[in-house]
Amino acid sequence: MTESVSARPSLSPTSRSTLTRYRDRAAIDRAALDAVLDAGLLCHVGVVMHGSPVVLPTIYGRHGDTLYLHGSTGAGNLRAALTGEVSVAVTLLDGIVYARSAMNFSMNYRSAVIHGRPTEVTDPDERLRALRVITDHNAPGAWDVVRPPNKKELAATRVLALDLTEASVKSRAGDSGDDPEDLDNGVWAGVLPIRQIFGTPRSNGDLAPGIDIPEYVHARVTQAPVDA
Amino acid sequence: MTESVSARPSLSPTSRSTLTRYRDRAAIDRAALDAVLDAGLLCHVGVVMHGSPVVLPTIYGRHGDTLYLHGSTGAGNLRAALTGEVSVAVTLLDGIVYARSAMNFSMNYRSAVIHGRPTEVTDPDERLRALRVITDHNAPGAWDVVRPPNKKELAATRVLALDLTEASVKSRAGDSGDDPEDLDNGVWAGVLPIRQIFGTPRSNGDLAPGIDIPEYVHARVTQAPVDA
Repeated sequence: MTESVSARPSLSPTSRSTLTRYRDRAAIDRAALDAVLDAGLLCHVGVVMHGSPVVLPTIYGRHGDTLYLHGSTGAGNLRAALTGEVSVAVTLLDGIVYARSAMNFSMNYRSAVIHGRPTEVTDPDERLRALRVITDHNAPGAWDVVRPPNKKELAATRVLALDLTEASVKSRAGDSGDDPEDLDNGVWAGVLPIRQIFGTPRSNGDLAPGIDIPEYVHARVTQAPVDA
Repeated sequence: MTESVSARPSLSPTSRSTLTRYRDRAAIDRAALDAVLDAGLLCHVGVVMHGSPVVLPTIYGRHGDTLYLHGSTGAGNLRAALTGEVSVAVTLLDGIVYARSAMNFSMNYRSAVIHGRPTEVTDPDERLRALRVITDHNAPGAWDVVRPPNKKELAATRVLALDLTEASVKSRAGDSGDDPEDLDNGVWAGVLPIRQIFGTPRSNGDLAPGIDIPEYVHARVTQAPVDA
């Protein structure tokens, strides 16, 4: 993470991050990348282990131009990530696109894929900051309230930083794209929206009486009616 | 896909699909694998291209012991998949687990990861069946109504079959797992449920008047109140 990197106006496409298909769906735009990463809860991390790809889901957090990942020091995929490259994908599904022909069916989505060579975060302050960023991402408001990591937990945790320089954002929105000859075939075409919602929080069975659900949890419950 | 494979009582774990961490979360159970695959709408496919991992989201379908993928004949990752191995992950998020300490935060989820060497489907009947399986998976009911693939579309489409033999299923459910010394620290602990819902269908702007939203779409709209 250098000043020149953080000052770049847009993503730097490479042969891998430049889309070879559906070029019109590529938004070479840093704001779009941040929006996808900030809206997602989960990423899929791909590494190469013994010559084969391994994809695993995990949580993450973003701070400026850096994506943070963490896991157990025993996690093989994080070890592999430090000896080579990773490919990290975050995908948000927005709808199922019903077309007038089978091959024009599609999905509405927003997707980010980041490629790079992660580094291990070893500085104690940055490690703590990274863990906070990850916690804030999936559980905003909790970090200041809960017990912070202790020495033993920190010793068992590996933290990786991945620069967001080499990334691509791809999305699709809107109606189905049908062939002209299908427009009058009488088949319904449209979008079935998909949305990820937060339901009613459930307290632990072992929670002591008198501890209410905190506002930072309550505030996340999806209030809107089911119209996606 | 052989009889001995389809008759196996459970998944065949290998060093890659046997979890090295959180062994208690591994459900070596074929029904659990099918349940995750059948509930998901999207997978993340990892391949190795020029020595580096590449992870991309795509749709899929399952028929018996086979996972079908498809894409453009120009898609580099499908070409790469045919010269090596793939890792395919399907992850369903069920909740954010709030713990009494930062490092015990977690996610409730169901996840399947399949490893293998896909084959290209070339038999015309199986290709059509695979495309139907994929369409049925994300848009059940539509295949029999829409225009089927034509020669040109089929020529531009690559279909891959991946055997489900080498797969692992991992899941987490329930309350946070806290350290005994944190149980009385006064912090709320519990789960914020996550659910993926289908909203109200939107017809295409170019839809001719008088074409109603079909029952196979309407029936999918999430009717339950927002309690995940």
